[in-house]
Amino acid sequence: MNSYEKLVNLAARRSIFYPASEIYTTTPAGLYSYGPYGVSIRHKLLDLWRKHFVREDDMIEIDGALVMPAAVLKASGHLGKFSDPMTVCRKCSVVHRADKVLTEATGHEYREAQTNEELTDALRKHAVKCPACKKGELADVTRASLMVEALVGAGKKHECYLRPESCQSIFTDYLRMTKTMRVKLPFGMAQYGKMFRNEISPRQTLLRQIEVYVAEIEVFFDAKQSGIPKFDAVKDYSVNIQRSDQDAITPVLAADLLKNKIVSYEVIAYYLARTQMFFEKLGIPVDHMRFRELADDERAFYAKEAFDFEVKTSIGWVELVANNYRTDYDLTVHAEGSKKDLSFVDEKGRVLPHVWEISVGFDRTFFVMLELALKEEKERTYLSLPSAVVPLHAGVFPLLSNKPEQVDKAKSVYDQLKGCYELFYDASGSIGKRYARMDEIGVPFCITIDFDSIANDDVTIRERDSTKQMRVKTAQLRDTMFALITGQRKID
Amino acid sequence: MNSYEKLVNLAARRSIFYPASEIYTTTPAGLYSYGPYGVSIRHKLLDLWRKHFVREDDMIEIDGALVMPAAVLKASGHLGKFSDPMTVCRKCSVVHRADKVLTEATGHEYREAQTNEELTDALRKHAVKCPACKKGELADVTRASLMVEALVGAGKKHECYLRPESCQSIFTDYLRMTKTMRVKLPFGMAQYGKMFRNEISPRQTLLRQIEVYVAEIEVFFDAKQSGIPKFDAVKDYSVNIQRSDQDAITPVLAADLLKNKIVSYEVIAYYLARTQMFFEKLGIPVDHMRFRELADDERAFYAKEAFDFEVKTSIGWVELVANNYRTDYDLTVHAEGSKKDLSFVDEKGRVLPHVWEISVGFDRTFFVMLELALKEEKERTYLSLPSAVVPLHAGVFPLLSNKPEQVDKAKSVYDQLKGCYELFYDASGSIGKRYARMDEIGVPFCITIDFDSIANDDVTIRERDSTKQMRVKTAQLRDTMFALITGQRKID
Repeated sequence: MNSYEKLVNLAARRSIFYPASEIYTTTPAGLYSYGPYGVSIRHKLLDLWRKHFVREDDMIEIDGALVMPAAVLKASGHLGKFSDPMTVCRKCSVVHRADKVLTEATGHEYREAQTNEELTDALRKHAVKCPACKKGELADVTRASLMVEALVGAGKKHECYLRPESCQSIFTDYLRMTKTMRVKLPFGMAQYGKMFRNEISPRQTLLRQIEVYVAEIEVFFDAKQSGIPKFDAVKDYSVNIQRSDQDAITPVLAADLLKNKIVSYEVIAYYLARTQMFFEKLGIPVDHMRFRELADDERAFYAKEAFDFEVKTSIGWVELVANNYRTDYDLTVHAEGSKKDLSFVDEKGRVLPHVWEISVGFDRTFFVMLELALKEEKERTYLSLPSAVVPLHAGVFPLLSNKPEQVDKAKSVYDQLKGCYELFYDASGSIGKRYARMDEIGVPFCITIDFDSIANDDVTIRERDSTKQMRVKTAQLRDTMFALITGQRKID
Repeated sequence: MNSYEKLVNLAARRSIFYPASEIYTTTPAGLYSYGPYGVSIRHKLLDLWRKHFVREDDMIEIDGALVMPAAVLKASGHLGKFSDPMTVCRKCSVVHRADKVLTEATGHEYREAQTNEELTDALRKHAVKCPACKKGELADVTRASLMVEALVGAGKKHECYLRPESCQSIFTDYLRMTKTMRVKLPFGMAQYGKMFRNEISPRQTLLRQIEVYVAEIEVFFDAKQSGIPKFDAVKDYSVNIQRSDQDAITPVLAADLLKNKIVSYEVIAYYLARTQMFFEKLGIPVDHMRFRELADDERAFYAKEAFDFEVKTSIGWVELVANNYRTDYDLTVHAEGSKKDLSFVDEKGRVLPHVWEISVGFDRTFFVMLELALKEEKERTYLSLPSAVVPLHAGVFPLLSNKPEQVDKAKSVYDQLKGCYELFYDASGSIGKRYARMDEIGVPFCITIDFDSIANDDVTIRERDSTKQMRVKTAQLRDTMFALITGQRKID
């Protein structure tokens, strides 16, 4: 088993995430629920994103509706263009992504952007059979819309869709923000929420779903004066760049990104650095990261420069962030579609801002962070998560659950701490098993009440990664936990 | 203007919330976006809900997919029954809720649960005309499904819907929680997220939308032994009860709810008390609250006892929480629908748990909390929000924005505090205008750097509600802010 499979197993066993509506066998693939530990970890990941990007860079955050009218998505280009090439097996009727089937069958890379004719020709040339039944011939390639329709209204329904990108809410709300929020260029608009993609073949659990949590940022800037005052703070920080025409991944100083014409604007260099810094905070090793520059034929139709931020996992490089220079494409098409003037006006004059996008796939980031944190040594499995993103702060246990005085003491310690910390109170099984249960979901500390705790009014604290222990007086427990969780103190 | 209208105006002016996709004129009604202050307040409200209910009562929280297969909603009864009575104007084609049109036209209360025939007869008897064009005759009443269809999959589509209640995710995931989460009856499963209702005539901004944020809790308990150990903590707390056959609202001790047979179980009495306590934390006066007991013909088809928790606003009583005793209805129908055994098994045996539901309408709670916090006195408008739910902690200003030394000092104070607090840095307009801008969105403190601040290295802190001020040395500012925000200290 590779780490990907190990994490999927662990997630199922501990309900970190699992298939939605799973007691019903007819539920379509690609829909997931988060369980209690998953919810907690994801919320802390969100807090960290909000702190790192929104607050540190003084962005404004919105939360738009998921249902959007057709007019918005017609203007954005999605209604016409947002589709994947599909092919149906003439024997078993299973539907496949044509480009994926071809890539797997031939070992050469095919892309969704290729025409139906090119892909059909390739299917015929290589006589590709259905990968499901292994026998059937595959039909000519057609396009399957990735949009999920959601009609609303009674009587005559309104043509609406679940948003295929959350950023469309940012573009439609941008005008109001420029008028009411006292912003100055450059400024970032941020949003966390769901988007929907009617994937032809959802797979790899959280990595390719129908409902996707994304944390998106659109930075609006003046393309004629794109400097950013804080650039000095990142200029000596190195980001891992893989150019579109090279295999090598090279650390490049943020200051050199602009100098060497890898990116066109200082604001882009700044946010590439800030984005990599965020993933460092999640405990992901820098040598597992790369910004992969997309070639001309790989970029989305709206992007002039694009870097996929990818992380190396046991199943290969996984894209976690789409970083796109969208130019003034979005504001131009929405100005046309809505017949509103979307230019930004200040004392320097009138300008249609350009956009740098940082679109973090949140479920993917969650998954990959957990996969890379998964450690196995001897007979122990644990999630070595940074303190900022643990599901709970501590487990609190009586050593012997048949000793009422230990159980009562553990309960009083639990009640004393729960106002400040998230805790689990587990009195079932051997102490070793209880440690193991906490370790494998990433809880950093266990607090145990034993024989001596009753006489001495103290407890044992055990640390997850090192398994080191220390004794602390109950009266000092809250402060000690604070120092341990915030990393101001270590057990030695 | 009443407070409702004042808040809607304030919200629009400061982008607290506003119509989604509003630059497009074809966007259907009933879809809203939250702007930066709204997002921040709502997140803090969520933190408070999570702390009060989920953490203090040791609940487990999940987050399920929004798209659900037809099988789940067929079993739950929604696919057949979840509809509103509609009538179309034969002249202008506007669609109306039949029961609402009748209630408004006659002054008598009509209900959605009445049959199409009853409502059609009443329309004819009272010769009700279309309230939109004032002229057209209204067609016979039909049912409009409240479900929003969302087909997924390529080729042959899966029949799916956006969930009409978030609790359905809790019922489908309940079995897994009993097997993996070491829970004991009674236990609560909580969830925050969206649900969708295809409202015939969405209105009153956040009060009746298509997409609704809900924070739902389902407490599973054994109907044969429904005591709850923590009951003592609430037994002397009074909840405001309005019986279904009375007009009076009477404070009743939690202990008396059971004794006087107002509710059937201790667990219900406990959570009625805990629910009212939550709304007290939001600053809502207790004399504006009531639990309105629903009569037999008002309750949802799955509810045996039901209390709408309502709050008095400028437009009347608004329901914020549906409190329902759902019996074992949900687990029974999902056991049948999924062919899974959903009974709870422990050392005491096997039981099909009953359910007490606490379904908080989150957008409504957000709205009503703000409306009741809106104060006007002399020439000042402010949101007197409790510290726990403010959009920002402080505004930081130079008194004179044309004095570089004051601007620089304000910037350094801002940077010093922003790691701990959410701040706004506003150097535009008179100091009075800047105070006013912070007051009306509920920011509790303003920090001003003036002439003396430069020489003395201190600042002025001004409090929102009292407008009182104090001077504090910059070195003590962080600690002072902490004491002020947490209420450990007041300015006098």
